Amino acid sequence: MNISVLGCGRWGTFLAWYVNKVGHNVMIWGRENSKNYHTLKDTRKNDYLTVPDSIEFTSSLETAVSQAEVIIISISAQELRSFAKQLTTIDGIENKTFILCMKGLEATTGKRLTQVFSEEVGKNINLAVWVGPGHVQDFVNDIPNCMVIGSEDVEVTKNIVEELNSDLIRFYYGQDLIGNEIGAATKNVMGIAAGMLDGLGYSSLKGSLMARGTREISRLVRAMGGNDLTIYGLSHLGDYEATLFSPHSNNRRFGEAYTKGESFGKLAEGVSTVKALKELSELYHVELPICDALYEILFNHKDAKEILEQLLMRPVKFEF
Amino acid sequence: MNISVLGCGRWGTFLAWYVNKVGHNVMIWGRENSKNYHTLKDTRKNDYLTVPDSIEFTSSLETAVSQAEVIIISISAQELRSFAKQLTTIDGIENKTFILCMKGLEATTGKRLTQVFSEEVGKNINLAVWVGPGHVQDFVNDIPNCMVIGSEDVEVTKNIVEELNSDLIRFYYGQDLIGNEIGAATKNVMGIAAGMLDGLGYSSLKGSLMARGTREISRLVRAMGGNDLTIYGLSHLGDYEATLFSPHSNNRRFGEAYTKGESFGKLAEGVSTVKALKELSELYHVELPICDALYEILFNHKDAKEILEQLLMRPVKFEF
Repeated sequence: MNISVLGCGRWGTFLAWYVNKVGHNVMIWGRENSKNYHTLKDTRKNDYLTVPDSIEFTSSLETAVSQAEVIIISISAQELRSFAKQLTTIDGIENKTFILCMKGLEATTGKRLTQVFSEEVGKNINLAVWVGPGHVQDFVNDIPNCMVIGSEDVEVTKNIVEELNSDLIRFYYGQDLIGNEIGAATKNVMGIAAGMLDGLGYSSLKGSLMARGTREISRLVRAMGGNDLTIYGLSHLGDYEATLFSPHSNNRRFGEAYTKGESFGKLAEGVSTVKALKELSELYHVELPICDALYEILFNHKDAKEILEQLLMRPVKFEF
Repeated sequence: MNISVLGCGRWGTFLAWYVNKVGHNVMIWGRENSKNYHTLKDTRKNDYLTVPDSIEFTSSLETAVSQAEVIIISISAQELRSFAKQLTTIDGIENKTFILCMKGLEATTGKRLTQVFSEEVGKNINLAVWVGPGHVQDFVNDIPNCMVIGSEDVEVTKNIVEELNSDLIRFYYGQDLIGNEIGAATKNVMGIAAGMLDGLGYSSLKGSLMARGTREISRLVRAMGGNDLTIYGLSHLGDYEATLFSPHSNNRRFGEAYTKGESFGKLAEGVSTVKALKELSELYHVELPICDALYEILFNHKDAKEILEQLLMRPVKFEF
């Protein structure tokens, strides 16, 4: 099968490597003005892996899209809407399968990425998400993991899983797209909170964070019409090891650097998600105490130590 | 209030230290033939803390029990039944409050510790459990955490919380004794599994373990008549940081040593719990794949790598 991967960051490049490894013809697309793209194309290497010779490169979006039946997208979540608009200018995207591999929400609207994508591209495509745990560093060392493909159409899910499943990544069928997307996006928020606890010397409060974090996101998912149990599956809780505990986690590292007053160099994706959650909390009338606390810290510059102590140690008597 | 702590291991000694710190008169009981007891009494120190002078010591169970209104028990879970029998020979234990602080199940019967205790001591006492996350090493360094007091009688719970709550340990009222006891005991089993994954170089599968581990224990709790959500609270999921990720966790370290073929010196409490879960799985007709896998490894000497790979990477398509 011909598969194109749009985006050549750490994750996108891994996806291309993986999809090629399981037997598909792969093309990587990157922006012509992206330094990262040219370095990858020229050296066929990044910090994590070597790109096999059989993978092609292109900076023409039209070429990448038109030659593939399946198109994997791995760009910044906040750029998805404008990127999707660009895709609509390409002829013949109908009936192709698009797989979104980012974990985020549109910051200004709180919308899920499949909503954003559908609003721009329309319904005449097959659309899925690919979420769940796993580090590039582990996969390239042949350490397996389980992940999730989710879609509103279970046939689309099944077809993708059939093409991409392997001993390295065991795919599960997602049965709740709302829960899978909200879960995948919000685990980054818990990752930032975990990093802040690490930075403050409160790592042992990550246990409490896990119990309460899953609970509040679960309530949100239910209010949005999803299945509240999804949050306790691979797309959210199952990604906590990678996000709340791993030294590789960008969001955790961002949170840790933030409380230590160190520069992290870039914004973690979870920061935009915190903004999106403010929208969703109001829209669905669901209290999200942890997400709110992060909003106060990140956007209203409240003191992280004070806010997190207050949050996790406040005198609430009943758990549920 | 006069409080006695029966047991002077790492956790029991910490409990005595804590209860004294929040303002109670405390007596520690240890066995006359216990080397640990005499060292602690003589040096007033262990590897973690110094016992304040105001804490008394006794090796007379009668003295310890009769002088206290509240009796905290922290001994090996498998010894609870014979210990409880001993307690019944002491006059005047009626109406006293007993708090069980161990995380285990009776290996031979699968019974919860409050069941074991009640069977021996009868119903004319107040009985509660004290579970949830927290490392001695953190508490003595003034790092706070949240824990749970659970009882069948919410008035007993409230009274205990009122006496023991502080800024260092924020107590929640447990509302589901079955869930809290099963949750507290079984998190040790997941801790052993996590340690095995660490030992095999599969730490990143701990995410999947968390998602599936909570799910199967949750099913068991529901079958036993408890609330399946309890497992996602402090007594189980909330204790995963301390048990699945911390270098201090005995059960995690046991599992890691086991797969590396190293000697750990003693059995972790979770090993007996694995045996108990075999009973419960059959009694309540609930499949417990992770607990079963550990049973095969620990009691039938199956290969850990093979069994855990099979378990976590088996081709199951739907998550729930």
